[in-house]
Amino acid sequence: MGEFELLGRIRERLAAAGPRIQLGSGDDAAISVPGGATATSVDALVEGVHFRRGQATLGQIGHKALATALSDLAAMGAEAGEAYIALGVPPDLDEDGCLELLDGMAALAEATGTTLAGGDLSRAAELFLAVTVVGHAPEASALVSRSGASPGDALVLTGEIGAAAAGLRLLEDSTLETLSIDADCRVEHTTAGSTRQSAAKRAAGLVGRQLEPVARLGAGRALARAGATAMIDLSDGLGGDAGHLAASSGVGLRIEAGALPLAPGVEEVAGAIGRDPIELAAGGGEDYELLAAIPAEKLGEATAAVRGTEGIALTRIGEVVAGEGVELRLPGGRLLEPEGFDQLT
Amino acid sequence: MGEFELLGRIRERLAAAGPRIQLGSGDDAAISVPGGATATSVDALVEGVHFRRGQATLGQIGHKALATALSDLAAMGAEAGEAYIALGVPPDLDEDGCLELLDGMAALAEATGTTLAGGDLSRAAELFLAVTVVGHAPEASALVSRSGASPGDALVLTGEIGAAAAGLRLLEDSTLETLSIDADCRVEHTTAGSTRQSAAKRAAGLVGRQLEPVARLGAGRALARAGATAMIDLSDGLGGDAGHLAASSGVGLRIEAGALPLAPGVEEVAGAIGRDPIELAAGGGEDYELLAAIPAEKLGEATAAVRGTEGIALTRIGEVVAGEGVELRLPGGRLLEPEGFDQLT
Repeated sequence: MGEFELLGRIRERLAAAGPRIQLGSGDDAAISVPGGATATSVDALVEGVHFRRGQATLGQIGHKALATALSDLAAMGAEAGEAYIALGVPPDLDEDGCLELLDGMAALAEATGTTLAGGDLSRAAELFLAVTVVGHAPEASALVSRSGASPGDALVLTGEIGAAAAGLRLLEDSTLETLSIDADCRVEHTTAGSTRQSAAKRAAGLVGRQLEPVARLGAGRALARAGATAMIDLSDGLGGDAGHLAASSGVGLRIEAGALPLAPGVEEVAGAIGRDPIELAAGGGEDYELLAAIPAEKLGEATAAVRGTEGIALTRIGEVVAGEGVELRLPGGRLLEPEGFDQLT
Repeated sequence: MGEFELLGRIRERLAAAGPRIQLGSGDDAAISVPGGATATSVDALVEGVHFRRGQATLGQIGHKALATALSDLAAMGAEAGEAYIALGVPPDLDEDGCLELLDGMAALAEATGTTLAGGDLSRAAELFLAVTVVGHAPEASALVSRSGASPGDALVLTGEIGAAAAGLRLLEDSTLETLSIDADCRVEHTTAGSTRQSAAKRAAGLVGRQLEPVARLGAGRALARAGATAMIDLSDGLGGDAGHLAASSGVGLRIEAGALPLAPGVEEVAGAIGRDPIELAAGGGEDYELLAAIPAEKLGEATAAVRGTEGIALTRIGEVVAGEGVELRLPGGRLLEPEGFDQLT
């Protein structure tokens, strides 16, 4: 099958275009009439760097590529609009494989109201997916950058952290004896004991967050509407991403490590590998939860709105202070050095 | 140097953001206020598939990645707006190499009024550049798709074709004895004879069109304003791309092969490799000239406008007819089978 036939089969599988799209995939360019402000971001996933085909299904890889891109729109408080995909196809990925990958992406696109509006297929030595997403808002001022936090704002976090990092350890370290995970990423429990069973469930949850992350689009819009002054998604890890928000806003952040909402199972995995659970959670990336600054008096409204739209908690984990840098304070008063993140990923 | 420091050095080199950009590179997403219709397209260049580092400088590779993406906007008649770059960085490309690549892209961005508004850097086994471009028009109806050609329209072509295909042969076939091209893609002439010298100049022109293609943005807008009914850029080659325009419009195209404007030097290269020059020009891709259908009575206006904006010719090469498919008629009446293009590229 050649490029054009494959593109035809891909287009057949795409959902109907969203309301802004006047001309979808298949021409020189897609035509859209945004009607307000747009937020645009690009993210690439590369085999061997961001995923391994043995650990994730092709559908999960497609899902993750779109989810990580959409997470940047969530962090702006934008509504998901369109996605444009550049796919590098290695010799050992056949057409059915391409379609499986696109199906994973298309399912998430449909669930999030994203139109897959264009793409490009290339031969490549290794599989890569570069995803550009365009989000929308009525006007630019409705979108939330990283740079508006003020001293006195509360620092809040959606959902729970540490799951993706713990899930990655479970996928990569077969010596984690208490849990065994097969190649299809299903968790098997070798005894029928209830402790073992619930551990298996928690492990599956952790692995799921690593392989199929959730972009907090609803929570991002809720936080933007409630008056968030700055926002970022946790792709690199709380330590690193908090640092970006602090630097962009020209403020310091004081985080109470004891207040961090750790995902169920993170403590067990950290224990099994001899790591501090808070360090694992704060240093590990890919949770794609949102970190936001918001005036303290808006906290109640924001918490209710986030709970209402995604059914997840909003946790106050610290505050914005004058100065610079991020202070992660443990309950005992010790300061934690956030894991650096200064590598190409 | 890590990702963030490199990103900082990249951002220092970018030109000021265009008027639509409210927030440029460096946040979760760029914020733009389009104020009309947008045309959006993504294109990827992959090492070993679309370029070789030995044949092109890093600056030329950056230029070509942006130019090929912008060419899709030219084919819509859109004004260049923003570009978003996903860069896969192999182990043997250092920071200076990344910057050289970006400099090539930034120079073209500045020349075309394109804002480099966002990007993503990843480690990768091989160099790849995925470029998403957003173009603008006052309204969707001002943009030209592939699908509006009607029987009776004139079929026109900007500039000259065959240069990129001939240039590629010169780069790849060292047995083309009449011309020698060194690794830096400068043409050397070994004798001082004027024939040899002008052949060398022509060869340099051909190689230049292969390595640093031009996106016909001005010509595209001129054709759109003059009333083009359908338009496509020649990335795959006239034969293949004419077929796409015909299929999208539900019409046939009759092309007089004798009317095709071949670039200087194409005949010599075709002769040296034993190919028919028209076949080489019509079957070879990457010229990035524009093929358009336009009502015959608008031809004069369009020709003057294209000449006025880019100083290049607009040549009537045939017409739109009822039916389907592309007929390439040689002066003697023989029909030429356009080279197929049914491979992932």
